[in-house]
Amino acid sequence: MENCSTTRNHGSHHRPMPWFGMDIGGTLTKLVYFEPKDLDGEEGEIIRNIRRYLTKNSAYGKTGYRDTHLQVDNVVICRRKGSLHFIRFPTSEMGNFLSLAKAKGMAELVTTVCATGGGAYKFERNFRDEVNMKLDKFDELDSLIKGMLFAEIHYSTECYYFHSSSASPARRSAESIINYEKKLYDFSQPFPFILVNVGSGVSVLAVRSPNDYRRISGTSLGGGTFLGLCCLLTGCDTFEEAIQLATKGDNKKVDKLVKDIYGGDYEKFGLPGDLVASSFGQMHLKDKKAQVTKEDLANAVLVTITNNIGSIARMSAVHEKIDKVVFVGNFLRVNPISMKLLAFAMDYWSEGEMKALFLQHEGYFGALGCLLEFNEKEDNNGVAGK
Amino acid sequence: MENCSTTRNHGSHHRPMPWFGMDIGGTLTKLVYFEPKDLDGEEGEIIRNIRRYLTKNSAYGKTGYRDTHLQVDNVVICRRKGSLHFIRFPTSEMGNFLSLAKAKGMAELVTTVCATGGGAYKFERNFRDEVNMKLDKFDELDSLIKGMLFAEIHYSTECYYFHSSSASPARRSAESIINYEKKLYDFSQPFPFILVNVGSGVSVLAVRSPNDYRRISGTSLGGGTFLGLCCLLTGCDTFEEAIQLATKGDNKKVDKLVKDIYGGDYEKFGLPGDLVASSFGQMHLKDKKAQVTKEDLANAVLVTITNNIGSIARMSAVHEKIDKVVFVGNFLRVNPISMKLLAFAMDYWSEGEMKALFLQHEGYFGALGCLLEFNEKEDNNGVAGK
Repeated sequence: MENCSTTRNHGSHHRPMPWFGMDIGGTLTKLVYFEPKDLDGEEGEIIRNIRRYLTKNSAYGKTGYRDTHLQVDNVVICRRKGSLHFIRFPTSEMGNFLSLAKAKGMAELVTTVCATGGGAYKFERNFRDEVNMKLDKFDELDSLIKGMLFAEIHYSTECYYFHSSSASPARRSAESIINYEKKLYDFSQPFPFILVNVGSGVSVLAVRSPNDYRRISGTSLGGGTFLGLCCLLTGCDTFEEAIQLATKGDNKKVDKLVKDIYGGDYEKFGLPGDLVASSFGQMHLKDKKAQVTKEDLANAVLVTITNNIGSIARMSAVHEKIDKVVFVGNFLRVNPISMKLLAFAMDYWSEGEMKALFLQHEGYFGALGCLLEFNEKEDNNGVAGK
Repeated sequence: MENCSTTRNHGSHHRPMPWFGMDIGGTLTKLVYFEPKDLDGEEGEIIRNIRRYLTKNSAYGKTGYRDTHLQVDNVVICRRKGSLHFIRFPTSEMGNFLSLAKAKGMAELVTTVCATGGGAYKFERNFRDEVNMKLDKFDELDSLIKGMLFAEIHYSTECYYFHSSSASPARRSAESIINYEKKLYDFSQPFPFILVNVGSGVSVLAVRSPNDYRRISGTSLGGGTFLGLCCLLTGCDTFEEAIQLATKGDNKKVDKLVKDIYGGDYEKFGLPGDLVASSFGQMHLKDKKAQVTKEDLANAVLVTITNNIGSIARMSAVHEKIDKVVFVGNFLRVNPISMKLLAFAMDYWSEGEMKALFLQHEGYFGALGCLLEFNEKEDNNGVAGK
């Protein structure tokens, strides 16, 4: 930690460039890179090389991607103005990432990377032994909250929700989500809120101020479960493929609905006939099994995992008496079906009392929060921040 | 309903024999049959035939079974002493059941059957049109609670729990459940309790007295999900096969554990390294997928569904400030792994404050509760009950 803000080999009062924040998750590693506009000569050729490499491409090798649509310009961090770049690659490719870092000369320049996520612990030794880099480790939930509050302030279209044109929640149905419209939400007064982070698994937090939060629930049925089951059931290989399949399928051919059991609604408890009573509940019947497509199966997995997350989120919100529920994490990437299902479920079951909110930089807040440690260290040194 | 207690063609003050209670669920139909000891001549040859057929066999056709180990003798219902028999068959075989009822002459004798479960609504017309039987329909949760309270009083070994020999919850681990011992539990002062009914789907109730209960939660990930996913992933056909497979498998080859992500425990939030972080979270990796067996996959499905139910049950119990959680439903049949996992989860996460309880007649309380309607009608007529 002593390296975080002390003067280094470039004679600057900042921590030496480049600045990375890294969130090494169970499935994906998220990397946020700050590119200063005022890059001066002192910072040398190697930094310019890294910058050229990282910002010219949007794909790195076979598995790394830069989400160019998420880039944020004109951000001031540590008194420097620049752009934030958002890059991801599978954590299973960490070995290749380290080789690349070595080959591109990054390892000669970067002595410390701020890192979070479980992999910051798991891979600490690999970073040290293979590329002589030190990982400054930060708690992933601290980083997550710090990152999302920063993004909300600095990116005007960060927070959004889905709007239904139907008049009342009671008149809405799961079918109607196809007409949901995305609308901006003013999240400048965020507290309190429930934060649901859907990565490989799921954590649910109650957040009452930037520093007052508790992990109140969680489930192991998350994005990793969706992807793992889809790979097993459909033979697909990637999250994108799984989502594509799910988009074309119909869970009603796979699940048992309330009306399949009751012949209609279960009125006493207000359970509509179209509600899923038993996920995958028709798949023990040979004739039904013979009729389903891999698209139907992928859709059923998506609906199952999403509704379960929605249910746990809603129970948590009721318990904490909080009406705003923010969903983040890479499970939501390229996944409007899940976002709309969550929006519908929160609205319907709370009779319009609760709101599901979403954020543009969905999976990057941990990495971003880490990178912001540069700011804090600077502030702690008594140097004025932005 | 007018038939329930009026004098009928046998000159008795009871509703005519035989007495059945039926719970037509999403996957299984449960039938409870009351066999009086004092069967008199008046009640005729047909009843004797039914009795001989039902009580001589323990298998009916290819798919019906009588759970002989659950039989309860010397019960008094409606002033008659006799035995309760417990029979189940797949709801998908309802057509064959109705044909059998016709062939065995049951339909000539039984004019009304007390029924609950969604199928009491869905199949009402089939009963009327095909065998001229009327279904007296009762709410399934009313019946469930009525049935379980009756069983607890009349069957001395009804309620049990699992005892760990480890000194403190903190010293127990998921591995230790293999040594759990089944022990009787005195449930004579039951209220309040959380009731978790795991059939095809799951309902969670808070029960504060026989007539004061609320459905507080539920999930579509239940026994039907376990069976459906196992059929898809392993090619098995029945619940028994799925359980057999699961007994021999290892979910750790399928799931991503906290230590797979962190390299050890996630200490800040007290999450042990062996905890599942992401169910099926390794199955997007081709090499891991190539190594798993169908036994591992069945075990992972069982652990996933069970832990999710445990988590929802625990959240419900915390929210309602209730420390006894009773698990019932046919998902628990021949399934000690799930019962022990639930016992462990409730104990571990509540630090010993909550207790998971189980009941011998796990899936039959709805059907039993229905049959008990005979008692109530008798009482309502001013005739002394047992």
